Amino acid sequence: MSDKIFRVNMGDLSVKIEEVPAAWQGLGGRALTSTIVAAEVPPTCHPLGKHNKLVVAPGLLSGTRAANSGRLSAGAKSPLTGGIKECNSGGTAAQLLARMGIKALIIEGLPAEAQFYALTVTTDGVVIKPENDLVGVGNFDLIEKLQVADKKDSGLLSIGPAGERCQLSANISVKDPDGKIRSLGRGGLGAVMGSKRIKYITIDAADAPRKIALADEDKFKGAAKTFARALLDHPVCGSALGAYGTNVLVNIVNEVGGLPTKNFRTGQYDQHDMISGEKMSELIEARGGKVKHGCHAGCVMQCSQVYVDKEGNYVTSGFEYETIWAMGAHCLIDDLDILAQADSIMDDIGIDSIEMAVTMGVAMEAGIIEFGDGQGLLKLLQEVKDGTPLGLILGSGAGVTGKVYGLTRVPVVKNQAIPAYDPRSVKGIGITYCTSTMGADHTAGYSVATNILKCGGFVDPLQKEGQVELSRNLQIATAAIDSTGLCLFVAFAVLDDETALPAMVDMLNARYGISLTIDDVMALGKAVLKTERAFNQAAGLTSAHDRLPEFFVDEKIPPHDAIWDFSDEEIDEFWNF
Amino acid sequence: MSDKIFRVNMGDLSVKIEEVPAAWQGLGGRALTSTIVAAEVPPTCHPLGKHNKLVVAPGLLSGTRAANSGRLSAGAKSPLTGGIKECNSGGTAAQLLARMGIKALIIEGLPAEAQFYALTVTTDGVVIKPENDLVGVGNFDLIEKLQVADKKDSGLLSIGPAGERCQLSANISVKDPDGKIRSLGRGGLGAVMGSKRIKYITIDAADAPRKIALADEDKFKGAAKTFARALLDHPVCGSALGAYGTNVLVNIVNEVGGLPTKNFRTGQYDQHDMISGEKMSELIEARGGKVKHGCHAGCVMQCSQVYVDKEGNYVTSGFEYETIWAMGAHCLIDDLDILAQADSIMDDIGIDSIEMAVTMGVAMEAGIIEFGDGQGLLKLLQEVKDGTPLGLILGSGAGVTGKVYGLTRVPVVKNQAIPAYDPRSVKGIGITYCTSTMGADHTAGYSVATNILKCGGFVDPLQKEGQVELSRNLQIATAAIDSTGLCLFVAFAVLDDETALPAMVDMLNARYGISLTIDDVMALGKAVLKTERAFNQAAGLTSAHDRLPEFFVDEKIPPHDAIWDFSDEEIDEFWNF
Repeated sequence: MSDKIFRVNMGDLSVKIEEVPAAWQGLGGRALTSTIVAAEVPPTCHPLGKHNKLVVAPGLLSGTRAANSGRLSAGAKSPLTGGIKECNSGGTAAQLLARMGIKALIIEGLPAEAQFYALTVTTDGVVIKPENDLVGVGNFDLIEKLQVADKKDSGLLSIGPAGERCQLSANISVKDPDGKIRSLGRGGLGAVMGSKRIKYITIDAADAPRKIALADEDKFKGAAKTFARALLDHPVCGSALGAYGTNVLVNIVNEVGGLPTKNFRTGQYDQHDMISGEKMSELIEARGGKVKHGCHAGCVMQCSQVYVDKEGNYVTSGFEYETIWAMGAHCLIDDLDILAQADSIMDDIGIDSIEMAVTMGVAMEAGIIEFGDGQGLLKLLQEVKDGTPLGLILGSGAGVTGKVYGLTRVPVVKNQAIPAYDPRSVKGIGITYCTSTMGADHTAGYSVATNILKCGGFVDPLQKEGQVELSRNLQIATAAIDSTGLCLFVAFAVLDDETALPAMVDMLNARYGISLTIDDVMALGKAVLKTERAFNQAAGLTSAHDRLPEFFVDEKIPPHDAIWDFSDEEIDEFWNF
Repeated sequence: MSDKIFRVNMGDLSVKIEEVPAAWQGLGGRALTSTIVAAEVPPTCHPLGKHNKLVVAPGLLSGTRAANSGRLSAGAKSPLTGGIKECNSGGTAAQLLARMGIKALIIEGLPAEAQFYALTVTTDGVVIKPENDLVGVGNFDLIEKLQVADKKDSGLLSIGPAGERCQLSANISVKDPDGKIRSLGRGGLGAVMGSKRIKYITIDAADAPRKIALADEDKFKGAAKTFARALLDHPVCGSALGAYGTNVLVNIVNEVGGLPTKNFRTGQYDQHDMISGEKMSELIEARGGKVKHGCHAGCVMQCSQVYVDKEGNYVTSGFEYETIWAMGAHCLIDDLDILAQADSIMDDIGIDSIEMAVTMGVAMEAGIIEFGDGQGLLKLLQEVKDGTPLGLILGSGAGVTGKVYGLTRVPVVKNQAIPAYDPRSVKGIGITYCTSTMGADHTAGYSVATNILKCGGFVDPLQKEGQVELSRNLQIATAAIDSTGLCLFVAFAVLDDETALPAMVDMLNARYGISLTIDDVMALGKAVLKTERAFNQAAGLTSAHDRLPEFFVDEKIPPHDAIWDFSDEEIDEFWNF
């Protein structure tokens, strides 16, 4: 039985199951969500209005035994950036949807009644029910009340209070294998789900086959083995990420002077040791948490963890470098326990932890609280949770907060907060921030791999030479990888191990009985970027939006006194492909 | 002695007096501010950063005896729209600056110290002094404390608390002949002045000649007489505006179903009689206020008034249709005394009364207060004055308020609030809202003149035919008129009385000893629009921003069940000239 498109119209509360159009059959994950959004959403529409659509799709390899292939993509017009948005996340949903033969779930229209709904997706279709009792409930309580935490065949996508209020930084939470939370984090997709008045979507795969049919089982098995081996053999994928999580980066990025500190005033944080991956790992070990943990079945890297408090009680997981950096170095808070608590609150509220944490630094810039005030930060998060006027400002993200308080040092591109690498001292990532169709987004073309970690060679992070090409190649490869359902971190192995990319392509071919080449896969990546850019251009984003805030040009950053020195023409060269 | 450019650099607190470059000599008012901004401000700069400049210029005829020629232009990159901005205002400043031979005052840079300053402009230059005592003071108190209310040779530009906080809707207040306030209202120019930490600018013309030298006194006198006659003879300029103020429009626009009511849900307000110009005039008469009042010396229309309370105490002046509509019909508040009180508070805070009042309707849409809650509106204004988080949201304008509260029915174009004529039932003004370089702005091309008042012919407001051409012609003419220092309301006479336009051109020629034709003046208007648009395009505004919010397309408005039915191509046709 071929895969289907499930289409939910919240306008008349109807559901259709559709054949997959020929043009979409070779697509999955980001390629599919971006293609559908570009095809069906008017670029100038209001992101919270009836013309926007929320599209959810597993990757091309999701549901198979391919290592790290359980990523789910979601797409829509972003209320934060005003452009197209794709987020991807671990959790159980992608693998369940793939097993159920659901190529994509498209949610369109706005309900006539001002009330919330819950969707239940089964192999037979989607049931839409009014949901009154669980409105206002945080994501953790929701999982508990729905009693789905440990149900293996039950996936859950949900929004917290931030999404219900259509806050620009609201995310969509995805239940993970342990009943905890992963996030379709950036760009406010939770607000889009909230605008459609959907509190949660249960995915019930009880009736679905356990395994996905593969066109060539043996070939797939061989390729998957090679691919997994490449991951396990790589020092980043197979070792560092498991040992210290993504937070392994704090000390590394600090060392090279690229750790934005005190709202991007310096590139090194004197308290970096206190928030580092090494410190985190040590605390977790000592307290009896879990250092290694996977966000979805089949993950061999295990970069997540279970962070516990002094008494050994669960606090958070998926406690990422980005979040720790933003509340730590960016806000000058050096207490991991406070950061973990904040991380958990953000998951519960359902708000992007990068956008929210960067916004906290902007709030400090505005003088709402002092830099370094950890308790103050927790209080501000309580305001976000409660939806007070101040909480609503902060929940609208760094850009809006900067406007409301009349600030100029506001680290955003296309209104999305700049992540954890200073673009002046890690110039490749600056090109990615500028040019990504997603707004400032390190994952869109993670030049840090080559600028700092020396994967796939080395491009000096302080020099302009080679950065545009590096970012371009990585953004193309990333768009392809994001379409497979593979975790982006496989890219480290792909960059360094020559067996990895062919194995990835072989898996795709064996899954579908096709014969793609590596060039075909890269062509897919290029096509995805061009589709996304065309949408953005029609939505009103121009090269003027492919720019960093001017303070990166005007202020040097220690210790290298680095400056953002790319001309407009040099940046715009990115799109010449 | 030829006119000079006074240039103030707040970065090093220096002042330069410069010759006027040849290319700028024929320019004044909007033509000059827009040309300078386009030439000197990088389009992608942060509007509140050091690269933006605030430019103030009297019109080409300001300071002469030409009727209604005392308008002052101010320009900058707008923090509200992200595009170029020109505002103009009555008051005494334009005529004083013109007498002083100051072609333009350019204020650039940001001070190094985090404190406020006051500027004093004399014929000799500009003195910059730290100003600590008057920070936080409202505009009315400021005028009183500076003891400039009745000083004829002393002009004042100032910001209130909103400008000090760099709020996106902050305006710049201009002292009028009675020591009251006129406003450089829209687009947040007060925030630009606030970003440069200038609390106020005193203009001291004591040493300036009483009269401006004219190239041809006799010719000027004749032309000025013809021009004044044309104004006085016109039913709108010479009669209606004086009798009822701009608020004469409430009943007229309501009658044709174009009065946006309850945040643009209907085109008629059942309580229109309670807030009409007729009612206002009756109240003012009965209470002993002034029905007629001019915002600058030499005004023959006298559309302003002195609105007094039941005890006969001064409440406000320059109490305009737009403000009354927005708090009245838009917010469903039918009590003129509350609206007058609110108008006065807005002047004191220094915030654009259109943006702020439209935002109040958006606040009602968000459920912050109920539609119709006049006391609630006054309380919200108090929050704006106090700079509470809620006040800061509202002070950021309708667009930001809509984002923070996750709304879709937010009447803005280019993030600037839509004024008092529904674009569905007055389609010409809709084209102006879409295409104006200024964001939604009725004054940019006041099609209402022809759509409703039947000046310059009649173009049926409910039909698409002819609206693009009408708006284009009016926007071109307006850009020219805004460069002369003439009040835009002269346009009614210009449209209907064939002696008016030649007289206007004759005055320009007699003033400067040149020989412009009517075509030359219209060419100036075209050039201004193209300069402004080029700036906007470089700043990242595209045709995607020349659009109305989608609810105007999706929702019909009673009583005509009119809809916004222009295609993108039809709108974009505007720029074909």
